[in-house]
Amino acid sequence: MMSTFKPSEDHSVTFTGWASTGTPNLKPWGYHPRPLGPKDVEIEISHCGICGTDIHCITGAFGALPEPEIVGHEIVGKIVAAGAEFQNRIGEHVGVGAVVDACGDCKDCTARNEQLCSKKSFIFNDTFKDGHGGKTYGGFADRVRVHGDFVYKIPENISLAEAAPLLCAGVTTFAPLIQHQAGPGKSIGVIGIGGLGHMAIQWAAAMKCDEVVAISSSDSKREESKKLGATKFIDSKNPEDMKAAAQSMDIILCTSFAKDADWAALLNLVANNGKMVLLGLPEAPLSIEAGAFVFRQVSMVGSLIGGKKMTGDMLDFAAKHNIRPWIETMPMSDCNAAVKHVMEGRPRYRVVMETGAAVRA
Amino acid sequence: MMSTFKPSEDHSVTFTGWASTGTPNLKPWGYHPRPLGPKDVEIEISHCGICGTDIHCITGAFGALPEPEIVGHEIVGKIVAAGAEFQNRIGEHVGVGAVVDACGDCKDCTARNEQLCSKKSFIFNDTFKDGHGGKTYGGFADRVRVHGDFVYKIPENISLAEAAPLLCAGVTTFAPLIQHQAGPGKSIGVIGIGGLGHMAIQWAAAMKCDEVVAISSSDSKREESKKLGATKFIDSKNPEDMKAAAQSMDIILCTSFAKDADWAALLNLVANNGKMVLLGLPEAPLSIEAGAFVFRQVSMVGSLIGGKKMTGDMLDFAAKHNIRPWIETMPMSDCNAAVKHVMEGRPRYRVVMETGAAVRA
Repeated sequence: MMSTFKPSEDHSVTFTGWASTGTPNLKPWGYHPRPLGPKDVEIEISHCGICGTDIHCITGAFGALPEPEIVGHEIVGKIVAAGAEFQNRIGEHVGVGAVVDACGDCKDCTARNEQLCSKKSFIFNDTFKDGHGGKTYGGFADRVRVHGDFVYKIPENISLAEAAPLLCAGVTTFAPLIQHQAGPGKSIGVIGIGGLGHMAIQWAAAMKCDEVVAISSSDSKREESKKLGATKFIDSKNPEDMKAAAQSMDIILCTSFAKDADWAALLNLVANNGKMVLLGLPEAPLSIEAGAFVFRQVSMVGSLIGGKKMTGDMLDFAAKHNIRPWIETMPMSDCNAAVKHVMEGRPRYRVVMETGAAVRA
Repeated sequence: MMSTFKPSEDHSVTFTGWASTGTPNLKPWGYHPRPLGPKDVEIEISHCGICGTDIHCITGAFGALPEPEIVGHEIVGKIVAAGAEFQNRIGEHVGVGAVVDACGDCKDCTARNEQLCSKKSFIFNDTFKDGHGGKTYGGFADRVRVHGDFVYKIPENISLAEAAPLLCAGVTTFAPLIQHQAGPGKSIGVIGIGGLGHMAIQWAAAMKCDEVVAISSSDSKREESKKLGATKFIDSKNPEDMKAAAQSMDIILCTSFAKDADWAALLNLVANNGKMVLLGLPEAPLSIEAGAFVFRQVSMVGSLIGGKKMTGDMLDFAAKHNIRPWIETMPMSDCNAAVKHVMEGRPRYRVVMETGAAVRA
């Protein structure tokens, strides 16, 4: 239990989750959420996906955790309590992603890029910056309280379990394809076929891109990539594959975090004037010759999740085009086994944990 | 003189230039150009600028030269002979830049990006790939033969001496501002105030960008930057300057080749969703944390000179808006002194060599 009193805590309730407390082994742990403000909603969590960023936080890649931390940012559940502004949403089945608050007024918020707001709050390992205080805690738990504007209604035809990974893996791959104008006439590459990559392939295929190229060091992904909608598969360890595909893709989404990535070889897959979009954080600095950018006018650009409008558009697109993550469900009570499964790279392609909370029919 | 016979040489004429022959010291040297083809023009050179790329070639940064090389790619002169297709251009005062041929049929050529064509020919250290053969030689010479489609008429109100640097420094800085949509509402940064940078400031100011920020490690450029049109000057060695300008520029053109550049600090000047455009080749690989791209959706993108249409548009824009390089003229017969002057970083801001050929009134 909490060892120190914090003025932004609501001592009338305790939420219970699975916390990282200095070792990768998660332990049951309770915390007092911040008081339910007029714009907050309280969600009874039914599902939570496991993303690479959760693992990075648990294992200390983002630095030592000063106090117990509850990760999880692909959250789905039901609104069971709300402040004055969102009373009408009680009972709604919703999702929450990595960003749970932003200022609403800055240049980035005005441009619908709340995820870039300097006052945004992440769902865990962060604090609310809206003046009401409180530390944020994620979805490896029974409940969560967040700003109601960052809570998305789940379309009726998407199951709650399948909805969870859309909140991070889904929007993280959908947003850059929209922003960089994927569609007919474009050839799209996807490096790394996992939680993010298997969504990227499906989006790009549904957007009717000319080519959707799965790029993986694991030949075992070849057949599954085609089922997901890829028109081509490239074994990144096969020099002939890489040579044949040189300079052919307009947009490549890089979902790989490998620290030994050969950036010269990967950038050589990008067409003239094309883009390599980084969706994650490789574990070592990139070392790249400037000529790889200059001689063919190639870009490297980062993309961070997506804003509120983009997240809503993504859910609508998934509902309309029948795009779903491939998931494996496990009970949240087995979260340590689930985390181990993810760390071993075994899921095809996303683990979604179930709390056992009642879900809609 | 040439030591071996080459079938693509016209032995009826000898062009005389200043060649690099293994040391930085240029020596008078004659060569036989390729035969004048139906699409070729022969230019009597009156002026040639000196660019950093010329210096890199002379000093061996692009590798040892297998045979004597004549550099120079900011060439101005008069067409004195032409193949059948360009007879009507004889007598025209024209400029030639770094690219002197391309296939005309590929995706890049069709998109007016001839500088990205895989069959393009550079003006020196290259060969023609159009089937007629011949090595290319640059503008440190009395004459040059190139494809007439890559020869640009110099507007009447631009002096021939001032026109020369436009053919490389001019278009190299103009093109990315157009491609990346500089203009009202945008804040532009220019790293490195030299041959390229002093043009970039002038273009951005004429394009009515909200801010035009000169970024230099040399405080001596402060006043001159303002004369060129900069609205602000940042001393890149001053941490307070760099902090105050953090995340403020939509497009930064990087014209610096410093091998010790602090890329994290420079990328931190780029606004969210903004772009760092590399115009040159730093002498060491870039080492960059992926987070510098991802968390603020920042791009790094290369830009290479400009295509034929862009070059023509640039000359028109310079003529209309009265944009001119700041030049120092020297006789081409003093080319070794001129090269030394450039290598010492002294010109404000471009050296243009004069051959003494008659120029228009």
